[in-house]
Amino acid sequence: MSQQQDRGPADAGLNAPERVAAYDSLLQPSSIAVVGASDDARGPGGTIYANLRQDFPGALYPVNARRSTVQGDKAYRSLGDIPDPVDLAVIITPAPDVPDLIRLCITRGDGAAVIISSGFAETGQDGAKVQAEVARLASSSGFPVLGPNCIGFMNGYARIMANFSLRPEANRPVAGPVALVSQSGGFGSYILEKATRADVHVGLFVSTGNEVDVTAASVARYLIERPEVTTLLMFCEALRDPDLFLEAADRAVELDKTMVALKTGNSPAVARAALSHTASVVGESAVFDAICEQYGVLRVHSIEEMVDVGLILQSGRRMNGRSIGVLTASGGAGVLAADAISHYGLDLPALPESDQARIAPYIPAYGSALNPVDHTAQISALPPDTFERILDVMAQSEVLDALLPVTWQDEGAAADGIRRLHHEQAKPIVPAITIGGGLLTRAGVPAYPDPTRAVRALAWLAKRSTRPRPAVGRRTTSPVAGRAAQARELLLSSAGRPFVLESVAKQVLALYGVPVSREFLAHDGPGAAQAARKIGFPVALKALSYELAHKSDAGGLRLGLSSADEVATAYADLVGVLAGAGVADLEGVLVQEMVPADIEIMCGLKRDQVFGPVVAIGMGGTLVELLGEPVLLRVPFTTSEAERAVRGMARGRITHPTRGLTEAQIEALARTLSGVSAMADELGEILSADINPIRVSAHGFKAVDALLVLSDPRGAGHPSARRRPDDHFERDIT
Amino acid sequence: MSQQQDRGPADAGLNAPERVAAYDSLLQPSSIAVVGASDDARGPGGTIYANLRQDFPGALYPVNARRSTVQGDKAYRSLGDIPDPVDLAVIITPAPDVPDLIRLCITRGDGAAVIISSGFAETGQDGAKVQAEVARLASSSGFPVLGPNCIGFMNGYARIMANFSLRPEANRPVAGPVALVSQSGGFGSYILEKATRADVHVGLFVSTGNEVDVTAASVARYLIERPEVTTLLMFCEALRDPDLFLEAADRAVELDKTMVALKTGNSPAVARAALSHTASVVGESAVFDAICEQYGVLRVHSIEEMVDVGLILQSGRRMNGRSIGVLTASGGAGVLAADAISHYGLDLPALPESDQARIAPYIPAYGSALNPVDHTAQISALPPDTFERILDVMAQSEVLDALLPVTWQDEGAAADGIRRLHHEQAKPIVPAITIGGGLLTRAGVPAYPDPTRAVRALAWLAKRSTRPRPAVGRRTTSPVAGRAAQARELLLSSAGRPFVLESVAKQVLALYGVPVSREFLAHDGPGAAQAARKIGFPVALKALSYELAHKSDAGGLRLGLSSADEVATAYADLVGVLAGAGVADLEGVLVQEMVPADIEIMCGLKRDQVFGPVVAIGMGGTLVELLGEPVLLRVPFTTSEAERAVRGMARGRITHPTRGLTEAQIEALARTLSGVSAMADELGEILSADINPIRVSAHGFKAVDALLVLSDPRGAGHPSARRRPDDHFERDIT
Repeated sequence: MSQQQDRGPADAGLNAPERVAAYDSLLQPSSIAVVGASDDARGPGGTIYANLRQDFPGALYPVNARRSTVQGDKAYRSLGDIPDPVDLAVIITPAPDVPDLIRLCITRGDGAAVIISSGFAETGQDGAKVQAEVARLASSSGFPVLGPNCIGFMNGYARIMANFSLRPEANRPVAGPVALVSQSGGFGSYILEKATRADVHVGLFVSTGNEVDVTAASVARYLIERPEVTTLLMFCEALRDPDLFLEAADRAVELDKTMVALKTGNSPAVARAALSHTASVVGESAVFDAICEQYGVLRVHSIEEMVDVGLILQSGRRMNGRSIGVLTASGGAGVLAADAISHYGLDLPALPESDQARIAPYIPAYGSALNPVDHTAQISALPPDTFERILDVMAQSEVLDALLPVTWQDEGAAADGIRRLHHEQAKPIVPAITIGGGLLTRAGVPAYPDPTRAVRALAWLAKRSTRPRPAVGRRTTSPVAGRAAQARELLLSSAGRPFVLESVAKQVLALYGVPVSREFLAHDGPGAAQAARKIGFPVALKALSYELAHKSDAGGLRLGLSSADEVATAYADLVGVLAGAGVADLEGVLVQEMVPADIEIMCGLKRDQVFGPVVAIGMGGTLVELLGEPVLLRVPFTTSEAERAVRGMARGRITHPTRGLTEAQIEALARTLSGVSAMADELGEILSADINPIRVSAHGFKAVDALLVLSDPRGAGHPSARRRPDDHFERDIT
Repeated sequence: MSQQQDRGPADAGLNAPERVAAYDSLLQPSSIAVVGASDDARGPGGTIYANLRQDFPGALYPVNARRSTVQGDKAYRSLGDIPDPVDLAVIITPAPDVPDLIRLCITRGDGAAVIISSGFAETGQDGAKVQAEVARLASSSGFPVLGPNCIGFMNGYARIMANFSLRPEANRPVAGPVALVSQSGGFGSYILEKATRADVHVGLFVSTGNEVDVTAASVARYLIERPEVTTLLMFCEALRDPDLFLEAADRAVELDKTMVALKTGNSPAVARAALSHTASVVGESAVFDAICEQYGVLRVHSIEEMVDVGLILQSGRRMNGRSIGVLTASGGAGVLAADAISHYGLDLPALPESDQARIAPYIPAYGSALNPVDHTAQISALPPDTFERILDVMAQSEVLDALLPVTWQDEGAAADGIRRLHHEQAKPIVPAITIGGGLLTRAGVPAYPDPTRAVRALAWLAKRSTRPRPAVGRRTTSPVAGRAAQARELLLSSAGRPFVLESVAKQVLALYGVPVSREFLAHDGPGAAQAARKIGFPVALKALSYELAHKSDAGGLRLGLSSADEVATAYADLVGVLAGAGVADLEGVLVQEMVPADIEIMCGLKRDQVFGPVVAIGMGGTLVELLGEPVLLRVPFTTSEAERAVRGMARGRITHPTRGLTEAQIEALARTLSGVSAMADELGEILSADINPIRVSAHGFKAVDALLVLSDPRGAGHPSARRRPDDHFERDIT
């Protein structure tokens, strides 16, 4: 379904689950050979061996061609000298030697390899050749290879530090429920260090480097099944194995786990940076956003945000809704938190009178028990447990789903109270602790140094907590026998053309259940007038020509013709104008009913180079290019996903209860999306569709214009097939 | 122009400059009396006296009614016992005693007072009475009073720590070019501590508390003139003295200084929090955003962002444009930075070949000299000055306005190179330093712990650096003699009505230069037909009635009538339908030309309770409520500000060069804004205006509908005068 760009799919006949199942050898080995182990503590071979030696409880074999001992241990001259197969070979030898080593591993029956060495595709053509050979070996034999050009991995649960970014003498991260996958080793190490300093407990960290075989997505697919892992942080530039990424996301939903993705490559300028770095596929940012929304992945946009989200998720606490209770000593802090709560779409409900009555005795008369609860700066003059007692009332309040105490220091009565209450009850307590915070985070309380960041983390937690139920297995399109053949017959007439003629496009769409305007193709004035009479007045005339992607550009459009005479006159006039404008090949003139509209919608299809077909729905008509923010949905999808997409158009503002779309219209539009999705599935030759506008009124809705573009054998050189950089879909504005 | 809500303007006949000039005594005193000074190191009286005693070089007088010494110094029994007047009295006595003390200060000829004590309006009615008395004393005599219920102030330049938030034994912040003003003392102290820890050097910090006289805005007005201050950070909830705030902003532009504002109260939920805290005026967030844009104030949205911006501004370095050069060891980091650069609207230009040629020798073949410059992880194997040499080439590059090196640790060759280069040349160097950063910030380099935050700070610096030239003095409306009187005569007919009849509103608007549709008021079918013939077909009919704010609601609108017969028939039909719908009082039927449109615009006027009249321009027509994000502009404004507003509509997307507004249309719309602005100035009784749509085409543009609302003697109870909460302007959708 999606297109692999820079390596072939596994040739060994392994399906994805088999491929990933083999990762136990790779990431949880019982025996490890380190080829290129050395005494040099500064180099990777010395560091990794020292790291493994220090912690790893299994069998460990240093391999060094020139030494009989490594770091005091008996060394093997070659991998072949180790008598039994090992689960994992860690390879730190010059790139040209690596293919032979991999061959040897496969022959010996070793389980998997990590290639730490650089000198592969990232260094130019020679390296790329070596890399291709390694890729071929891995895929043809189903032998998992991590790397090359990576820093390795860390498995804190199994005490395996096959990684040279941490020094042997450094403290090991606490192995908690968070896993981290990063293509970039350097950046991954940086996230790990940030996470560790923030008391986010990362138990597994894998860097995938050049991804000759194992990819960030395939590691994610493996890790999401690990019982120790509840939260998976993923940093990626390219996204190879998109199907495995989506499978992992679906499994995360089924297993009540969470995937958090930081994916770079969101900007036009980035293409250059990414291309200069590795031969990456930079997927379109809006598509990735939509995929994350659809598949329940939390997409963050900075490292800080990723670590912040990891911190609030690792406690495993959830919110039943979006309501936050704020407790503060300062009206200013309360208002700032309230602003952020509103900005991030959370709620700040007033406390019911019963709660207020329980809080009132603890605060001065000029404080507030409403929410934000403001105990005022006088709290220092009150009994030391005051803060905790108020927070306890809030924790018990039925209207609050999480608590946000804003306080100054991580020492003192307030912080003590927060720590105690956090352990005594199950509601998330997410303090903004202005100075410090370490005492709280070390006690397992997700504390943030800024109220706005605390609220942002809460917003992610609320989104995660209210994630829709698993949609897995119900995402299908509905094939209809014979429909594709019928459509293909229609499309024949436009083969080799820059786009499909509107009249034909509409017939194809109608086959897939998209309601279209009533219309006839005419070839002379009397024919047009007759067609108009059949349709009923008023009508529109549209010149159809492969030279006219945008009909209105050359005067090829007449609207609101209200009599047969007007139609005949307009027909003659239109033909004359077009001839004057140099349009030589007129395929006919479409006589079309005028469709009333309260609102205009656009519906589109395109094929993402990573994720395959994606449909879009948004505001239509002439304003769409200015204001449209279409909602995207990957094919296939469920009915409820389609309805959610329709409701999400224009940020939810056109499903306003009084003047927006009705429930029936929303359902009908969702069905239209499903029709386009089926068309995408059945007719792979349709590169893109732009159905715009669909005119919607109380009487129903119909597509009045549509542009289909077929896979163009002449390449992407034709203007109508070329995408404008800041435009998701080609639009034909009538 | 703006309305004072909770205190009267200065009664002493002082104009704003005089009022603010007196602040020298307050904030830079040579002699200070501390009334309520004590030995109790935990209380404010003990802390403030100890703080002052430790640092203050001037004359210091402790006053304590019951002790002959305070902290070992000779104490005075009462303020009256101090022989000479003092510049400043710091008052830390119970609230009920304060008015007499203020009277005594005024009688003695003391210069100013700070009231630290709480127990005023924030505690209820009794306190409010005392506060009102203090306010009266201050304003009637022109005696500056800071507070009450504040933590005082700090003037690091003059070594005055009249503030109890810092302990006497604590290190003093380095007195740099940054000043901080905060209503909330607690929150201000927190910002100060955050700033100090981030090496943002705050020289002056003032908390204004209940703002009985001195306000955050008046302090800002004073501080912006201080030669030591180049950057002013302001945290405020309410905004009293809006005129002084705007004056300060204008002076900041004139003096090439910067104001940064964090203003809370942006959300509906916040009104409750703010009201429960102090009797605050919560201005509308969108208006404050617009004011900041218009007056060159940087509006940030979190404390962290405010401190980040303070850090990048305090160096005084500026950017000549928006182009960033990124230097990194990791492709991933480069792409992440590139994404953020794109997200924040900055540029990432490719380096010219000459620069690339100078960089190439320092990096491996598989690195990149393009931008992001990627020297790869191999840098540890290269000469130690490699990083610095590359950065030096980038610093000299003509295409780069600032540099963003992404590096791991604040120790090592890279960080050394950054520090040296920062001092050797003038281009801003803004590192993202992933771990640490303190060595760099202490050396004056604005370093951030996250690449995204570094880019956000750079975006603010770029915005600040490219701030338009001062607009001061050129902001005027253009009064025309007699025009207001003429307009008032027209408006008479709608006095006491819920809104002004469309036909009248259009005539008023036409007086102010707004082009309106050609139209006549008819009272019967033949009259309508005759009017239509005068105008030319097609025409529209609109029923005018004070019972119909939204004409289309009750069928009071007919469009596209193309003959006299049609008009007569439609007239009869329309009158019948309205009668059936219970519309009793029909003022007439407006016969109106049909105006062609390529695009519909709305222009509005409302009166903000803080900042007075504000005009708006945005997308018009039926979609405006769904998608409109009008640009707001405070009256008065300059021509260039008006044009900038027009260009800013729909985030700049409708001034697209090929299909947007033409230069002539932009100018004409700017003139319309100026007309509405003059109307707002001359006709104070017009509460709001909603001119929507203005239909714009190649042939010109005309307003086809307009709703004016007058100050309503019956209050705001009428639906058409009531604002919907999420809607800036009333709109009449035709």
